[in-house]
Amino acid sequence: MKKIAVGLVGVTGYTGMELTRLMENHPHMELTRVTSRSEAGKPLRAVYPFLQGLKSGDIVITEPDPADLAANCDLVFLAVPHGAAMETAAALRAKDLKVVDLSADFRLHDVATFREWYKSEHTQTDCLAEAVYGLPELHADAVKGAKLIANPGCYPTASILALAPALRHGFIETGGIVIDAKSGTSGAGRKAAVGSLYCEVADTFKPYNLTKHRHTPEIEQELSLLAGVDITVSFNPHLLPVNRGILATIYTQPKEGVSFDAIRAAYEADYAPHTFVRVLPQGSLPELRSVRGTMFCDIALMHDPRTGRLIIVSAIDNLCRGASGQAIANANLMCGLPLETGLWCAPMVP
Amino acid sequence: MKKIAVGLVGVTGYTGMELTRLMENHPHMELTRVTSRSEAGKPLRAVYPFLQGLKSGDIVITEPDPADLAANCDLVFLAVPHGAAMETAAALRAKDLKVVDLSADFRLHDVATFREWYKSEHTQTDCLAEAVYGLPELHADAVKGAKLIANPGCYPTASILALAPALRHGFIETGGIVIDAKSGTSGAGRKAAVGSLYCEVADTFKPYNLTKHRHTPEIEQELSLLAGVDITVSFNPHLLPVNRGILATIYTQPKEGVSFDAIRAAYEADYAPHTFVRVLPQGSLPELRSVRGTMFCDIALMHDPRTGRLIIVSAIDNLCRGASGQAIANANLMCGLPLETGLWCAPMVP
Amino acid sequence: MKKIAVGLVGVTGYTGMELTRLMENHPHMELTRVTSRSEAGKPLRAVYPFLQGLKSGDIVITEPDPADLAANCDLVFLAVPHGAAMETAAALRAKDLKVVDLSADFRLHDVATFREWYKSEHTQTDCLAEAVYGLPELHADAVKGAKLIANPGCYPTASILALAPALRHGFIETGGIVIDAKSGTSGAGRKAAVGSLYCEVADTFKPYNLTKHRHTPEIEQELSLLAGVDITVSFNPHLLPVNRGILATIYTQPKEGVSFDAIRAAYEADYAPHTFVRVLPQGSLPELRSVRGTMFCDIALMHDPRTGRLIIVSAIDNLCRGASGQAIANANLMCGLPLETGLWCAPMVP
Amino acid sequence: MKKIAVGLVGVTGYTGMELTRLMENHPHMELTRVTSRSEAGKPLRAVYPFLQGLKSGDIVITEPDPADLAANCDLVFLAVPHGAAMETAAALRAKDLKVVDLSADFRLHDVATFREWYKSEHTQTDCLAEAVYGLPELHADAVKGAKLIANPGCYPTASILALAPALRHGFIETGGIVIDAKSGTSGAGRKAAVGSLYCEVADTFKPYNLTKHRHTPEIEQELSLLAGVDITVSFNPHLLPVNRGILATIYTQPKEGVSFDAIRAAYEADYAPHTFVRVLPQGSLPELRSVRGTMFCDIALMHDPRTGRLIIVSAIDNLCRGASGQAIANANLMCGLPLETGLWCAPMVP
Repeated sequence: MKKIAVGLVGVTGYTGMELTRLMENHPHMELTRVTSRSEAGKPLRAVYPFLQGLKSGDIVITEPDPADLAANCDLVFLAVPHGAAMETAAALRAKDLKVVDLSADFRLHDVATFREWYKSEHTQTDCLAEAVYGLPELHADAVKGAKLIANPGCYPTASILALAPALRHGFIETGGIVIDAKSGTSGAGRKAAVGSLYCEVADTFKPYNLTKHRHTPEIEQELSLLAGVDITVSFNPHLLPVNRGILATIYTQPKEGVSFDAIRAAYEADYAPHTFVRVLPQGSLPELRSVRGTMFCDIALMHDPRTGRLIIVSAIDNLCRGASGQAIANANLMCGLPLETGLWCAPMVP
Repeated sequence: MKKIAVGLVGVTGYTGMELTRLMENHPHMELTRVTSRSEAGKPLRAVYPFLQGLKSGDIVITEPDPADLAANCDLVFLAVPHGAAMETAAALRAKDLKVVDLSADFRLHDVATFREWYKSEHTQTDCLAEAVYGLPELHADAVKGAKLIANPGCYPTASILALAPALRHGFIETGGIVIDAKSGTSGAGRKAAVGSLYCEVADTFKPYNLTKHRHTPEIEQELSLLAGVDITVSFNPHLLPVNRGILATIYTQPKEGVSFDAIRAAYEADYAPHTFVRVLPQGSLPELRSVRGTMFCDIALMHDPRTGRLIIVSAIDNLCRGASGQAIANANLMCGLPLETGLWCAPMVP
Repeated sequence: MKKIAVGLVGVTGYTGMELTRLMENHPHMELTRVTSRSEAGKPLRAVYPFLQGLKSGDIVITEPDPADLAANCDLVFLAVPHGAAMETAAALRAKDLKVVDLSADFRLHDVATFREWYKSEHTQTDCLAEAVYGLPELHADAVKGAKLIANPGCYPTASILALAPALRHGFIETGGIVIDAKSGTSGAGRKAAVGSLYCEVADTFKPYNLTKHRHTPEIEQELSLLAGVDITVSFNPHLLPVNRGILATIYTQPKEGVSFDAIRAAYEADYAPHTFVRVLPQGSLPELRSVRGTMFCDIALMHDPRTGRLIIVSAIDNLCRGASGQAIANANLMCGLPLETGLWCAPMVP
Repeated sequence: MKKIAVGLVGVTGYTGMELTRLMENHPHMELTRVTSRSEAGKPLRAVYPFLQGLKSGDIVITEPDPADLAANCDLVFLAVPHGAAMETAAALRAKDLKVVDLSADFRLHDVATFREWYKSEHTQTDCLAEAVYGLPELHADAVKGAKLIANPGCYPTASILALAPALRHGFIETGGIVIDAKSGTSGAGRKAAVGSLYCEVADTFKPYNLTKHRHTPEIEQELSLLAGVDITVSFNPHLLPVNRGILATIYTQPKEGVSFDAIRAAYEADYAPHTFVRVLPQGSLPELRSVRGTMFCDIALMHDPRTGRLIIVSAIDNLCRGASGQAIANANLMCGLPLETGLWCAPMVP
């Protein structure tokens, strides 16, 4: 079987790095182009010495030229900042390339919401109209037929998967949901910034962007669709001194008369067909290392008899499930391959 | 001025270690006894090589003998596990020694609550009756006259200080409070256990003891006293890959008509006389390193206009403010010294 | 093709954990037995929750019974402490099972040297006589025909591969070699010990076992065979606050008249056929993350014109290349498979 | 006693940060000026929120104006990059201010060596002529009378103190010395750079600048003075995933006939008067945490009977002993105060 040729626009960030890692062993896809304006002309191993001896290490970095990408790729991943992705996606779609965009540019269906949270206009509303929000457990059928995927954000992936069954089945109150989320530092990206220096992050811990993080409207959009009513959440992120991983502790209130057993049964049933979501047995709790390097989203359900609350804890690897791995999963579906292709592995522990 | 002679029962744990560190520069107290059954007979520097050349390094470890302690100390710190502390405290009180107990044995005023959460009987109810809960910002006057101090737990210190003004002034609903707390690993103690190994904690993050942590009733006791009504909280701890520090993110609901400005003003006024509590200016958020090695409790107040919530974030050093430093602060007050004596310093950053 | 059935004796340590991780995606081998005396009867996922949903998670742990292993396995990996491995290996060899022993029991050809460094007698000298030291780049042909493999230690793997070409070709003085080695904490094993606690290892760094580490004679044995003369090295390990990885900085003296270019050329030529050894280009230096989770041994050569020294730096993942991955590579060769089978992947960065 | 007024030029780096931390409790010095071109006009707590409530937090940052510094300070610390320090020092010396320069500008006595390693001309040779190399254990008398101190580099401090007695007494060969040094990441400074990001440093380890680090000539200068002959060393640094600390493992060859006991006795005697150098007892080894936040330099001596080598291990805190603490110690001596003033404390463990 001839391999599907894929391109990667924006290789110098952590999501680009992760995508090249995962692509090394993909049985049916092949990286044919990687682009970076600043590093064009070098083999990838000159930028990432750890790729020496690997297939991707020998790829020569090119400028991100749509014509060249169209001539050499069947599908392109965009790992560039939001705002920049919009134009590139449109240019590639104009050449009928399949596109998986890892930025936020096509995640929000409503342009007013986009404007409010991202402080800029959406200039590619045609593309926006055809884009599919690529959370496979929710939208696999749409993804299979899509040409442009808005790859979900890392926090939204962990939050939405954790809450989907509870909201879909109407088990919990839709008001008052609190998402206390903690992320590894790769989520801050690979740009030189004092706040991301080792000595500013190691051996400490802190909240940031409380009540104001841009992933909030994305979470609310998908939760509202699931619940059938508008949902406002209190979403509050924190920065962890680890490289990878997101853990969300979510506080909810079951509706009167809903039993905890019914909730657990629904979670297990809903996710039974989805091998990358693991509903943990009673007494077991997620942790970051259990999903390191994988596509797994681990979910635990805790009932607190003292307060009546249902606490849901979820964990993902923000670079793999929360970005590049999920992008490949979407690309798999778009190309008629099984979701898991090239992505199945055990977590790296320790 | 002759120095106050103090003893330390239980030197081999992290709180004992921290107490020897802090005592090195105390201008009016002197460690005259440190005890450990397993290490008796050795100089302290044989157990803690980093104390070579320091005053405490030359102290010879002794067995924990009440008569010997009474003959050589004015005040004794107990840094032994709960259960064990109870009997030792009673023996030392029988000799009229001042005692600061770092364990949980005298923190809960109600023996039934103690039995329920600690699964054992309280055998020293006379001592319990005279014990004062040693959170100086709340109970300084009682501490000054006390002979036996129940030194607060680390999570309760961070949680109670964060919520005290809001509850004292009746600003927030007393139901539905959520405390999402994150602690460094020294909180797990210095006992050999697979779960506390470097390779089980580093580069990961996880919740533990959700809804069941023993610090819950201690938090509820003090919050209920402040509010004047019984309060049940949802308290949920997580384990951080850092040595020291606790950060609590607390979700509350202001009562109808209470303005955020009024809340902030009350926090600033209430804590103005308390140099070790720092109410951060609007826009500044606590982080662990800002309090590392210090007695500071940093508190931020965030109003979320989208959900109406008041989010309170607090941070302490679990070993210093959450244990040994606070124990010395209480001892200072018991001995007629200013609270800050020997404890004032800048945090170690980075 | 029917899969080769393999067993793992000793699943509760980090090397056992790593072997189950790597086996998940092996295309031609299948774990049929995992053993642990303390955990027998449980499914593996009860001990390692991160294996839920994976093939190995459902394997029920058994007692290490040679008859049962012989009935169900073609080859057995021993991941038990030295001393214990000896007897088990003999019992399995008596049933003609292929054995890869990850312990030190069969690494030293000379029983007197074993006695001196391990303070115990070797009781299985027949097995010792047939054992092959399984460093594939040096002994692949012998490994292919072997029934019992002594899987190399982690430090020896990094040290021997770094020095092999220089000694084989007689480029450097055989006296005065210094190996300054640094290892991640998983090398200390998964036993509960105060010295391996997170709070004893994180945010610090220290040498240990200077001049006395048991990997010294193993390194000297192989270097002496390569050089054709007896070699004594100064081997000195340090403990790093990371989970995985060994980096060795090796100080040597080129012989009079040997050019640095000749040395580099020999390294590149010697390792050209060996895909898992990467001789880095001039100016590039190894680091732990570049080999994380992989079989790669990265080697850099530095000439210091000021002192005349040749400095060799090598890096491996101590759990993968330094233990379980190398064990699988040896098993591959013993079973007629290509060395790389199931082991090829990009490093996990970051 | 009126406090000595001191200024700090360059407060935004880690050494500036550390100096403000240490100054908080200095009994006889007071920070009256802190400068930064980029942050002038703000109170220091606006830049360093962790200084809220502390004395230094209220200091308003000023431009580095020599006239203003002269009017308000008795002594000035320079914590600016090399090159920049040279001119500022000259301007301050022209106003007869005492200066402690933390940069490398006045450390090398020989301008040709400076030019070779720093690739620039020395423009202030008059100042260079009066500068004293401020390693107190070697040059305390000169420091007491000095007006301009070249504060030693971090690696040189650890290396020179470790080797001084051995070379002073002629115990070891002066050729072939290898210094394998490992440093925490704060040594790389607080500038935004991809290579210093958390995700580039955490969970990895690597050598850097092998054979080429600029601290090499500084080490050689002082070792040569001690030995009375020119010494060339092989100095090789590595980057540790910790915030603070340097550990150097040093490989030497004792001269024929020199006993290990004589060496140990000389180290203990030489350093007996120097409270900040701790020669560890036989069997004890330095580690970074044992010196964290302190002025201690811990030194261990190991004899390897198999190779005949003497291995010396030393550890310091690079920010305190290797920079700002040592700067204050020198300032203490220059102002007639005991060396230890304001600097005595126990290390922060854990």
